[in-house]
Amino acid sequence: MENKENLIMINGEFYSPEEATVSVNNRGFNFGDGIFELVPVYNGRCFGLMQHMNNFFNSAIALKLPGIYMVDELIIFHETLIEETGLKDCEIYSQLTRGTGAYGLGHPEANIPELVMFAVPVDREALKEKRAQGVGLVTEVDDRWAKCNINTLNRLPEVIAKQKAVVGKYYDALFVRDGKITESTESSFFIYKDGILWTHPENNFIHTNVTRQLLMERLSKDMGIPVMEKAFDKEFALKAEEAFICGPRCEFMPVVKIDRSLINEGKVGTLVPELQKRYEAFVAEQCK
Amino acid sequence: MENKENLIMINGEFYSPEEATVSVNNRGFNFGDGIFELVPVYNGRCFGLMQHMNNFFNSAIALKLPGIYMVDELIIFHETLIEETGLKDCEIYSQLTRGTGAYGLGHPEANIPELVMFAVPVDREALKEKRAQGVGLVTEVDDRWAKCNINTLNRLPEVIAKQKAVVGKYYDALFVRDGKITESTESSFFIYKDGILWTHPENNFIHTNVTRQLLMERLSKDMGIPVMEKAFDKEFALKAEEAFICGPRCEFMPVVKIDRSLINEGKVGTLVPELQKRYEAFVAEQCK
Repeated sequence: MENKENLIMINGEFYSPEEATVSVNNRGFNFGDGIFELVPVYNGRCFGLMQHMNNFFNSAIALKLPGIYMVDELIIFHETLIEETGLKDCEIYSQLTRGTGAYGLGHPEANIPELVMFAVPVDREALKEKRAQGVGLVTEVDDRWAKCNINTLNRLPEVIAKQKAVVGKYYDALFVRDGKITESTESSFFIYKDGILWTHPENNFIHTNVTRQLLMERLSKDMGIPVMEKAFDKEFALKAEEAFICGPRCEFMPVVKIDRSLINEGKVGTLVPELQKRYEAFVAEQCK
Repeated sequence: MENKENLIMINGEFYSPEEATVSVNNRGFNFGDGIFELVPVYNGRCFGLMQHMNNFFNSAIALKLPGIYMVDELIIFHETLIEETGLKDCEIYSQLTRGTGAYGLGHPEANIPELVMFAVPVDREALKEKRAQGVGLVTEVDDRWAKCNINTLNRLPEVIAKQKAVVGKYYDALFVRDGKITESTESSFFIYKDGILWTHPENNFIHTNVTRQLLMERLSKDMGIPVMEKAFDKEFALKAEEAFICGPRCEFMPVVKIDRSLINEGKVGTLVPELQKRYEAFVAEQCK
């Protein structure tokens, strides 16, 4: 029987992984000229899909990618992909490039974009185990470009940083720009200290993050915890009572170590598990 | 008869443009995880091939791409591609990615790289005409990452800048970082003033450039013109007697306008044509 979990959708049509190819003159391949989005799926339903689609279109607009798909079509593509692959718990990755054309930095304004989508398997049980222990992050100099809020395919800085974490047995890398912590390769970074949450302000130096938005706009308010959007350094973070990263991939993950230094003596506190619990309640409600 | 000019070489094998594809899970496509090099070809011979291969390997090492091709093999690939396409005057584009694998920023250390090569047509007659008139550049904020010396596939800042030039009818865009000119999207920028050449120092904020090296190490010395490697701003550049960009794609191209301001009243001077003449003599000698 064919393995349907690996099916790839290109411009709305399904292909096997072997057939799923793009031209060597696809501008995504030559220049990283395109955008991406990752939507978490629970119980066969997308979580926060509209917020993710909002980010997707904002990124497309920032790169002036011609609009060829409406949000309604993208929603159907997500639903169809979930149905065809049969995956109930996964992530749906979407990548929109500026399409294919003669090699060159410049391009026709109306070059037709190409959309590739596929499901990425997620081991949420493994994440749960990590959450119980807390994870370590390794710092990396943040010398990325100044438009980190756009979800582009120029992801080499994140690749390099993540690989540094992988090789050093850390969960992820933590970017530090001009001495201040910005974010991890795929998640937002927060600390909890003296009854308030601290995080880097939402600007061009960090990714737009749907889980961060949920925390800022709902969870923190429900719990009555004020959030201070102000950049801070590693020394300050190490003095926190709790620290965590959050994002659609890791949800709320306690951070108990940065480089070789422990936070809260390496122990998981009580706030992050509570945030995770409340996150799961939102998921359960939205992905019935 | 088959058009052989469009032949694509993948890992040393030839494919027609229609057959020349890569997986949607090629890391070059998903993350821009790879490097490139462009080698100019004159009279069926590569110019400065060893210097270009040196840059290519330096970029590969910077990204820790496993070495699967020796320089001897790459030289043969270049020669074979020129022979098969039948193109006497073109550029050979090479792109080495970290290969294909399960989606994720992290990767197996020894993931097998994939090499794509093809010829890019060049209209050197059109360049000659532009050289006679001089060209205009439009400035763009240089907010690229801090490893511009690596020839990576994360080229979106250059795509955006080049497109700004295309739309505004400029020849190219000129990057300005913190008020100082760094380089154009594909070339080095120089000015000539009071008997000396000025250019941005060779560091992590500009690309390594074979034509720049030839100018610094040979042409300027042959002509007895000192070079000052010191960053300068647009106002300073506008007071120059002559200005130019140089690189393997444009050779030595007089710049007579930046944004809406003229340099030397918009006239091409005598130094840049002389540099071009000496460059052509080098080409004629090496590509007999």
